[in-house]
Amino acid sequence: MPSLILTNRTTFSASHRLHSSALSAEENRKLFGKCNWDNGHGHNYVLKVSVKGRPDPKTGLFINLFDLETVVREKLLDVVDHRYLNLDIPHFKDVNPTAENIAVYCWDVLEKYLPAGSLYEIHLEETETCSVTYRGEK
Amino acid sequence: MPSLILTNRTTFSASHRLHSSALSAEENRKLFGKCNWDNGHGHNYVLKVSVKGRPDPKTGLFINLFDLETVVREKLLDVVDHRYLNLDIPHFKDVNPTAENIAVYCWDVLEKYLPAGSLYEIHLEETETCSVTYRGEK
Amino acid sequence: MPSLILTNRTTFSASHRLHSSALSAEENRKLFGKCNWDNGHGHNYVLKVSVKGRPDPKTGLFINLFDLETVVREKLLDVVDHRYLNLDIPHFKDVNPTAENIAVYCWDVLEKYLPAGSLYEIHLEETETCSVTYRGEK
Amino acid sequence: MPSLILTNRTTFSASHRLHSSALSAEENRKLFGKCNWDNGHGHNYVLKVSVKGRPDPKTGLFINLFDLETVVREKLLDVVDHRYLNLDIPHFKDVNPTAENIAVYCWDVLEKYLPAGSLYEIHLEETETCSVTYRGEK
Amino acid sequence: MPSLILTNRTTFSASHRLHSSALSAEENRKLFGKCNWDNGHGHNYVLKVSVKGRPDPKTGLFINLFDLETVVREKLLDVVDHRYLNLDIPHFKDVNPTAENIAVYCWDVLEKYLPAGSLYEIHLEETETCSVTYRGEK
Amino acid sequence: MPSLILTNRTTFSASHRLHSSALSAEENRKLFGKCNWDNGHGHNYVLKVSVKGRPDPKTGLFINLFDLETVVREKLLDVVDHRYLNLDIPHFKDVNPTAENIAVYCWDVLEKYLPAGSLYEIHLEETETCSVTYRGEK
Repeated sequence: MPSLILTNRTTFSASHRLHSSALSAEENRKLFGKCNWDNGHGHNYVLKVSVKGRPDPKTGLFINLFDLETVVREKLLDVVDHRYLNLDIPHFKDVNPTAENIAVYCWDVLEKYLPAGSLYEIHLEETETCSVTYRGEK
Repeated sequence: MPSLILTNRTTFSASHRLHSSALSAEENRKLFGKCNWDNGHGHNYVLKVSVKGRPDPKTGLFINLFDLETVVREKLLDVVDHRYLNLDIPHFKDVNPTAENIAVYCWDVLEKYLPAGSLYEIHLEETETCSVTYRGEK
Repeated sequence: MPSLILTNRTTFSASHRLHSSALSAEENRKLFGKCNWDNGHGHNYVLKVSVKGRPDPKTGLFINLFDLETVVREKLLDVVDHRYLNLDIPHFKDVNPTAENIAVYCWDVLEKYLPAGSLYEIHLEETETCSVTYRGEK
Repeated sequence: MPSLILTNRTTFSASHRLHSSALSAEENRKLFGKCNWDNGHGHNYVLKVSVKGRPDPKTGLFINLFDLETVVREKLLDVVDHRYLNLDIPHFKDVNPTAENIAVYCWDVLEKYLPAGSLYEIHLEETETCSVTYRGEK
Repeated sequence: MPSLILTNRTTFSASHRLHSSALSAEENRKLFGKCNWDNGHGHNYVLKVSVKGRPDPKTGLFINLFDLETVVREKLLDVVDHRYLNLDIPHFKDVNPTAENIAVYCWDVLEKYLPAGSLYEIHLEETETCSVTYRGEK
Repeated sequence: MPSLILTNRTTFSASHRLHSSALSAEENRKLFGKCNWDNGHGHNYVLKVSVKGRPDPKTGLFINLFDLETVVREKLLDVVDHRYLNLDIPHFKDVNPTAENIAVYCWDVLEKYLPAGSLYEIHLEETETCSVTYRGEK
């Protein structure tokens, strides 16, 4: 059977504040601008999770989309949706919740619930002008 | 000259928490669910501002789109973009920042900077599943 | 309180065949073309259901979006989603499932589960080039 | 039968230059800015043509979408698509091709090929931030 | 000349039923859920066909987009559009028409009408939440 | 730190005429059809510029999106937006402004203002049916 990429698209609504504990208040304000304002702001994040593999000839499926979406919803969206990432998600107490770092976090959360080596790509759209793609390259 | 509707589309990213001071904590939690969680969450709001009028036969314009967008940006987006509405916008200290109330707020802010009677419609999309339309009906 | 329109967007995937029992086979083929082919075809329908009313000053809501979407899902989408409309939905045994007739059907199903007079508009997109809007005008 | 609105969405790619012969060169440059630059520029226009009426109970159709789209393509898009409106379309030799004036032009062209009184709305999107709606109000 | 990827986007509307002849009725129902219901359902499939190569320095084109779209329409869309894939397309009598298998089918149909080695990717969106990407990896 | 791709999406409106000086008038007309008509036509181009690299562990950023968008706007969009590419951009006096050639031009312009080796991909959408992807493969 050929090798294909299956992508599940979901959305979640969260707020965040870009702020690095390794920088001074002034450096944070200068680097992140309005994204550093004290009380944070939010986005409708669009999340595309892609897995890659060879469909079973009997079923025509590699991973059932419903199973993939269940993993995404139960392991990831139930944690981050309608949350203030900086305060509500322990991982982002010390990690600045940039789109880049959120994408890596999504990868790390989901990877352990999917067949080994099947996770292919995390694509995260933060706004209409900003998106990040991560393919697990450490 | 015929009468037309001109619409300017912009976006802003803000966070909010649905919470009514006229309800108990328990009532708030029950009515608003995850939208009431303590630290708020956020959205990329899509805002469509429509004005209605007769273009000038000389120019082919009623209100110049650039002027309309300047009003929207300077009077409204500069105030709400990248803000936590409940804490940062005085109007929402006492008013629950539902999509409905945000749309009315946008109308009330913009109306005074546009030619009398020209504001036709505020259309506010909060998520892919939720939008509100307000045409100034008191 | 002002009067606003609240819109909930959902989607459903269904198949149909355009065929009128009041026309001959030849008339059906000529009028509906490829939409009349024997075994039907399908669409991802985009459904926008709008209600209109005055929000409660205490809550900032007219109808809670979650309640509106629950009505749409339980009373309508659970019936039509993943169905072949002509065979699976009794209403369309005698009624040709054009986008126009589906929109009227959606109105008639939903109206009885919503506050009297609150249903404002059904907007149904069948493809990227075809949509129908119904506001209850009999 | 109920009364419904049927909408056909198409696109065309054209160029234009905003310039009014009733204004001086300096006034044109000041009013229209970059839209007045000498050699013009272009857009992918999105055109939504809506008709309103009561479907035939026998067919479930008011105007067949295919017939509506044929009128739009043959009478309008074949004329304006891939054209420089100011030079190639006689109507815009004396009329400034603003989005407002193009929408009125579309109405006037299409109205005569559609059943009397059936044309309901022209919606023309020029860019992601600018659209115009015309409902035939003279 | 540099090497580029050219992508043509089209859509087609088809219906299908997920059902594997290698599984029992009960296994099919359990694995495919509502996608296995007896009379099928449908989608507006979005198809993106990508070719890769070096443009001719004289023309600035590798494959003319119009020629590419003609191949896609005549060899593929004319076959699958407005069809019930399981019954109308011989290939899917024995092959379960999952998005994965449809994407491979599109590749196999188109590959023979395009310059050898030029087909780069088939991207097929079945719904807003499900898409498949195939790059010819056997 | 992991390696990620950051993408900035912008748009510009320009006009062009497909015409190769290496071909006769008749060959140009035959090859490019309506895209060769004398006075040109235009598009809203969607431009996605992607850079790839490892975020700084201190900031969570590789290249700040605001800095990336500033480069795109100042070095590229300020040059091509609202222009007739064939006449206004010296590069396209001798180079046919196909989507393919525009994408390569965008790469060549932007590459020199970005950290060495960081530019990963130019994705240019000309219409809803045509896009081009360039990853710097000479």
